Amino acid sequence: MADLDLMRQLHTQNDEKIVLLVLDGVGGLPVEPGGPTELAAASTPNMDRLAGESSLGLINPISPGISPGSGPAHLALFGYDPLVYNVGRGALEAAGIGLVVRKGDVAARGNFCTVDAQGNIIDRRAGRIPSQLARPLVELLNQITLPDVETEVRHVKEHRFALVLRGQGLRPELEDTDPQVTGKPPLPARAYTAEAERTAELVNIWLKRAFEVLKDQPQANGVTLRGFSTDPAFPQFGQVFGLRAACIAVYPMYRGVARLVGMEVLSFAGEGIEDQLQVLREQWANFDYFFIHFKKTDSTGEDGDFQAKVGAIERVDRALPQLLELKPDVLAITGDHSTPARMAMHSWHPVPLLLWAPSRGRPDGQAAFSEDTCRQGGLGIFPARELMPLLMAHAGKLEKYGA
Amino acid sequence: MADLDLMRQLHTQNDEKIVLLVLDGVGGLPVEPGGPTELAAASTPNMDRLAGESSLGLINPISPGISPGSGPAHLALFGYDPLVYNVGRGALEAAGIGLVVRKGDVAARGNFCTVDAQGNIIDRRAGRIPSQLARPLVELLNQITLPDVETEVRHVKEHRFALVLRGQGLRPELEDTDPQVTGKPPLPARAYTAEAERTAELVNIWLKRAFEVLKDQPQANGVTLRGFSTDPAFPQFGQVFGLRAACIAVYPMYRGVARLVGMEVLSFAGEGIEDQLQVLREQWANFDYFFIHFKKTDSTGEDGDFQAKVGAIERVDRALPQLLELKPDVLAITGDHSTPARMAMHSWHPVPLLLWAPSRGRPDGQAAFSEDTCRQGGLGIFPARELMPLLMAHAGKLEKYGA
Repeated sequence: MADLDLMRQLHTQNDEKIVLLVLDGVGGLPVEPGGPTELAAASTPNMDRLAGESSLGLINPISPGISPGSGPAHLALFGYDPLVYNVGRGALEAAGIGLVVRKGDVAARGNFCTVDAQGNIIDRRAGRIPSQLARPLVELLNQITLPDVETEVRHVKEHRFALVLRGQGLRPELEDTDPQVTGKPPLPARAYTAEAERTAELVNIWLKRAFEVLKDQPQANGVTLRGFSTDPAFPQFGQVFGLRAACIAVYPMYRGVARLVGMEVLSFAGEGIEDQLQVLREQWANFDYFFIHFKKTDSTGEDGDFQAKVGAIERVDRALPQLLELKPDVLAITGDHSTPARMAMHSWHPVPLLLWAPSRGRPDGQAAFSEDTCRQGGLGIFPARELMPLLMAHAGKLEKYGA
Repeated sequence: MADLDLMRQLHTQNDEKIVLLVLDGVGGLPVEPGGPTELAAASTPNMDRLAGESSLGLINPISPGISPGSGPAHLALFGYDPLVYNVGRGALEAAGIGLVVRKGDVAARGNFCTVDAQGNIIDRRAGRIPSQLARPLVELLNQITLPDVETEVRHVKEHRFALVLRGQGLRPELEDTDPQVTGKPPLPARAYTAEAERTAELVNIWLKRAFEVLKDQPQANGVTLRGFSTDPAFPQFGQVFGLRAACIAVYPMYRGVARLVGMEVLSFAGEGIEDQLQVLREQWANFDYFFIHFKKTDSTGEDGDFQAKVGAIERVDRALPQLLELKPDVLAITGDHSTPARMAMHSWHPVPLLLWAPSRGRPDGQAAFSEDTCRQGGLGIFPARELMPLLMAHAGKLEKYGA
């Protein structure tokens, strides 16, 4: 029996509240041997106090040695085996900006690019053209029509947009048109199954018109498409876990994954952790599971900026009392993966996890929240996809298995 | 390859003896933050001394967050994946009292209940009618006959009995007749597959006659049936592990699970741990694996009685030297699951495990046996179903895998 079946079978409902606070990429590495990681270096009096009352552990986002992208890493945190539940990048991008991708539709991520007179790409991101310049160009693309197929194009940010094709017989088995290097022309959309041949033809017609429409633009005079995919039709969170689940995230990607599993994605003003906790407070009565996504720990890690990542962690720690005032029954603080500043990229290193559940937890009594204390924690090292059953159990939301 | 196939392939025989001492529900929780668990609070000089010479660890009965019933929890300790090897409660109850359930038979658990003049249940357990009053009523039920089908009814304890139907074309896909609440009449046996329709009819005829036979009883004037199931036809212990295995348990449930996997269930006088160790001594030469089940750690936990659970653990510790005098080659002390007195129910929390194998173990050198020392143990945190291979290996009963 698959894990999700077990959750479907055993879940039960009560008034208890679960909060999953994801510090994106929080796991780190020492810069030099014997030095602290970002989390160990940060001054986190609130998390350290919680750690003493919590069960700690380390989670593997996918499996040992595998560095995940944000999509699979979050699916694992939501209880979905990321090796089973695949989602294409196009469908994810589209979902993240609220563009509907139904079963049978084909979605792709698009980039504006700059091509020279010979048609070779000289800038794969069109100079990261600002959003206010890109938006009217997206409107031009949105007016392109195809025979028997509906198209919708929506701007994402700067040089990025999403495209959705809707109609009969469409298939997503197409290769990216981005050659991934400059000095070469964009590739045609090539089908890698026979069933996708017609979709490839349609996409190539669309691309031809797009280049015509954009030909006089100084920077964004071309486009590439990547990550062709369709609605992954995931089992929905409410049915699997019986939870009314809400997502409080700023960035489209994370809002997109949450929407794909059926969470309600909350809108709010502002972009800071305090703004996120404000909407948490306002919506507290309406949901029993909240996914809060904090981005800065990852972006500072990707920038290779150890001190900035330490600062981001400290910012969350300072805001934590506002969250605790709401008296969640279960609070998990963890990351979707590690992004050590020393590596300036996502990594496979197991991610620290703090599981605080005052009425049902088995506290480890550790003095701090760090990779080191988590390694000695009572939860051990385990796959991230097993976190959801633990959160459910600690909130009293699972029946006994068998008699 | 499934785990059991590996055991079938690699097992070998020798004279070494394995003892699995199950303290039912031994895992616990502190009553207040920073306080000891039941096992940590108990004075256990013998277990503590053994712990120093042992490998310690924590086991997950099913998977993280899943609280198991006794059936699946014991199957896991016996090496059977409890998500693969399912057993219905009826077949388990029947097996526990030595009632034969073969392939094609249908077994159910029965309760005497009290119904009012309108036929509504007013007591689902007939006032927990004493066994001496229930036994003659079971004899009345045992005289009910059905066309083309043999029936056997046997008393379990107080208001509980087991029913087995034997014949051609019987199917166990029937819903419980116990409505689980008072103020409603018992439900008819309803089939949830077409193949089980005839069995449902037969069971309903049996139920009608049962109510007629019991109608003048003051308390036990009705019955309900639950957990319809058939012989799960599990791989047998002797074939999988090459062990002559014996069960020394007092309660029917545990004797039942042991019988389903093919252990020999030993009879003995008395109900105390000393009585169990007495039969262990007597049968020492006849088997090479002994499963000893101690119940009081669970029942006191379910009662929410922390001190009584501490006392039960201490009772086992005092008896332990009698077991050690027999010089087992491998001794594992653990539980089937946690039953924290604080929660007064089975829980998912990982269960302390002590694995003592003087000639092949890798001792951790911990000073005590507790959740805390087991968390730091060399065996780590692992699924309970992986314990059997460890016991086999430590007894020198497994060949090398591959060349």
